[in-house]
Amino acid sequence: MSAEIDPCSPIGPEQIGEWFEYTDVLIVGYGGAGACAALEAHACGAKVTVLEVSSGSGSTTSLSGGQIYLGGGTPIQTACGFTDTPRDMEAYVRMASGSSGDDEKIRLYCGDSLEHYAWLVNQGVEFNPEYYGGKHTNTPEYQSLAWSGNEKGYRERLVARPAPRAHKPRAFWEDGGATLMATLRKAVEATSITVHHETRALTLVKEGERVIGVLCRHDGQLRAWRARCGVVLCCGGFIMNKDMVRKYAPRLADATPIGNPADTGSGILMGIGAGGAVVNMNEGFISVIWYPSGEFCKGVFVNQQGNRFVNEDCYHSRGAHHCLNQPERKAYLVVDSAIYTEPPMYAAAKVIEVGETFAELERDAGFAEGTLSATMETYNRFAAVGEDPLFHKSPEFLRPLDQPPYALLDFSIDSGVYYPAFTLGGLDTSVDGQVLSASGKAIPGLYAAGRTSAGIPRNAEGYASGLSIGDATYFGRRAGRAAAR
Amino acid sequence: MSAEIDPCSPIGPEQIGEWFEYTDVLIVGYGGAGACAALEAHACGAKVTVLEVSSGSGSTTSLSGGQIYLGGGTPIQTACGFTDTPRDMEAYVRMASGSSGDDEKIRLYCGDSLEHYAWLVNQGVEFNPEYYGGKHTNTPEYQSLAWSGNEKGYRERLVARPAPRAHKPRAFWEDGGATLMATLRKAVEATSITVHHETRALTLVKEGERVIGVLCRHDGQLRAWRARCGVVLCCGGFIMNKDMVRKYAPRLADATPIGNPADTGSGILMGIGAGGAVVNMNEGFISVIWYPSGEFCKGVFVNQQGNRFVNEDCYHSRGAHHCLNQPERKAYLVVDSAIYTEPPMYAAAKVIEVGETFAELERDAGFAEGTLSATMETYNRFAAVGEDPLFHKSPEFLRPLDQPPYALLDFSIDSGVYYPAFTLGGLDTSVDGQVLSASGKAIPGLYAAGRTSAGIPRNAEGYASGLSIGDATYFGRRAGRAAAR
Repeated sequence: MSAEIDPCSPIGPEQIGEWFEYTDVLIVGYGGAGACAALEAHACGAKVTVLEVSSGSGSTTSLSGGQIYLGGGTPIQTACGFTDTPRDMEAYVRMASGSSGDDEKIRLYCGDSLEHYAWLVNQGVEFNPEYYGGKHTNTPEYQSLAWSGNEKGYRERLVARPAPRAHKPRAFWEDGGATLMATLRKAVEATSITVHHETRALTLVKEGERVIGVLCRHDGQLRAWRARCGVVLCCGGFIMNKDMVRKYAPRLADATPIGNPADTGSGILMGIGAGGAVVNMNEGFISVIWYPSGEFCKGVFVNQQGNRFVNEDCYHSRGAHHCLNQPERKAYLVVDSAIYTEPPMYAAAKVIEVGETFAELERDAGFAEGTLSATMETYNRFAAVGEDPLFHKSPEFLRPLDQPPYALLDFSIDSGVYYPAFTLGGLDTSVDGQVLSASGKAIPGLYAAGRTSAGIPRNAEGYASGLSIGDATYFGRRAGRAAAR
Repeated sequence: MSAEIDPCSPIGPEQIGEWFEYTDVLIVGYGGAGACAALEAHACGAKVTVLEVSSGSGSTTSLSGGQIYLGGGTPIQTACGFTDTPRDMEAYVRMASGSSGDDEKIRLYCGDSLEHYAWLVNQGVEFNPEYYGGKHTNTPEYQSLAWSGNEKGYRERLVARPAPRAHKPRAFWEDGGATLMATLRKAVEATSITVHHETRALTLVKEGERVIGVLCRHDGQLRAWRARCGVVLCCGGFIMNKDMVRKYAPRLADATPIGNPADTGSGILMGIGAGGAVVNMNEGFISVIWYPSGEFCKGVFVNQQGNRFVNEDCYHSRGAHHCLNQPERKAYLVVDSAIYTEPPMYAAAKVIEVGETFAELERDAGFAEGTLSATMETYNRFAAVGEDPLFHKSPEFLRPLDQPPYALLDFSIDSGVYYPAFTLGGLDTSVDGQVLSASGKAIPGLYAAGRTSAGIPRNAEGYASGLSIGDATYFGRRAGRAAAR
């Protein structure tokens, strides 16, 4: 066997000397998707083995803030005084997924959300019935429930009654992801599921059309695992693979990614090699190291032409998407001294111009005469009466910017505030995680979940925190069950 | 053999009863790419067979206006008094291709442009050394040379000296494409190349890793062609395949396509089935049934917020791209009575509001107070001195709109002006047309060119007329030569 193994070229069983281990369901990747797939396959009576490239479990889920997008009237929503229905959740998620959304996955994900909540609780995940109503990327203490997307947006309100749906496992601040994974790992450890760490999947083993195993590097050796029922790829996306990002998602290539180092696209490549189609490969989630939260979303985003382009109180990846869509990818936030007094995360906000009047700011920053100043005149005139007819920013964040000096903060592509965190394209899968060919046929024995597949979240514009972990855990479960059948 | 043949599942030679015909180079699709691939493979001494699904040749190239993007100082450019260099052409094409451009393909395409021009002439293609300087989608009479992209754009001028590069074969108005294909067909007919019409390629035949033939439906029978050297897929893109557009390029899914009916993605699917990777699948060329040409680009595009977003004198697919990127995909062209007097193509322009002043237009059309009117005030003030500091429209199209009544013409997604014409994603290929796997390895015996592959044109924003035929004919030739080796 050559040392150069191509993930896109599955090998035949005749190329395997001897199988290292036999199992029923073989899961590659021990993050949120992999752990849930393993637990469900085991619950179906299958012998389950998990292979993980890192020395610890958790992967991207561990690194995240841990919010899970759940709704339809969960006990936490109810305890915090919110009403939600599966229908409202579905209408919202459908809108957020945009034109590339998978209707059937959305319907199941939202329809089963209460069941999924109960299942997570059953695995030991604790949610704290406390609500945080502020604007942050996560709840700042132990609260579980928060707003995490654009549910209160103007267009969104027209299709669905808003409700907070981010459910963070009981944990301090950003520790939700690590806590979630620690809990799932504990649940896995209470079963007979076998986990091998430091085991790198190299390529799939195929017998005719059927995927029957995985060839790995393990303990310095090439070793092959035989999966009698199915292989489930839960290896994350490809945000850390520079070549793949340049090839498939070039828009994300000019900013430094902050993903899990194991997100190298290996699972996607193995799936392609076995005949799987890939969809939505150009999209990714873009994080913003500091985003107008709290007082700051009372500021005004403008492009180089001095025009607004988005409601500044939107979810941060929507803001990022629109900032990066402006001419020459240049964007700025206009603030006044009243809102520039809030301390957090200043360091990342580069002030590029200060002026006593908008006309001065406009001139000194090189905007065309009468552009930025006209934009601010209109904004202030409407804000004074609590209106934003252009982008429908929520009245709670509307006030005229009238306390000089005014400042212009940089949100351009090269300002260093943008960080792609994970990709949103991957293997095309059925609602049961079966990897599909480009003609829509299931590849026998092969499943995928989490960011190795294209699931519920499809674009930065509509992203809401919790959609990726929600998708990974829910469809991970479905894939695990289907593989065990 | 089942009647249900899956293009994504290549078959083995053992599944072929008997080969219907043997050839060296087998070309699937008889458009610009296929014809050029055939001619070059034949010139290399190969026995060449072309399979075409339609009853006539030409495909998308025939339906087009026939412009070919050539430059670097062609005899036609020189005869018309223009200076151009390969370096300028390359710098421009690189910019037009955007972040997803293939550097090596661009370098070869531009560096070889004079040679490609000479080759086309050698096949009998006639160019007429007359220049048309107006703004149209094609030259209105027999002129060959015209501007066809954004070469004179503000940002483009910073990287490359502008030159007109669209070369239309001598033909009246939009007959350039049919004329080009008639000429190439004549060249093919002067050789021993075999052409089979009404022959539908169904799937590839593979022996181990190597593509060795194609299974077709021909004269009501399943028949297989054996290619001793290589198969070249020149089957166009997938703009007429609704499911593929919805899955891979959902942004194009809400407008009615006007492509060649044979652009069903069949070549791309067969290539995927043989292990080929696909890239850039979300992009397509969007045509606009009428676009501000001539007097009309003196108008002003605004979005629902009353803001401008593009220089109105840009190439039509760039305009379309930006219109469709505006909030809720709504856009309008503001004109005054001085420019609304030009007759052509009025029917398609829907006037949705008329007003004696911009304030009246603004109010009656439902723009927020002080938005559209401020935009027009700024535009007119700068236009009066021949400037457009916001989007750098060319001075020749800058004049204040000051002849009431003013009208608002609809350019929103549902206005019926947008027509996706062809897709710009496809099989990943080497510069010699070898189809590459997702790990970058050439699939032995398999080549692709034209819109079955991802080539020079990569997006609507940077498209220039002639780039697709230029790419298809040039890389079709390279693929034909490589397959014949």
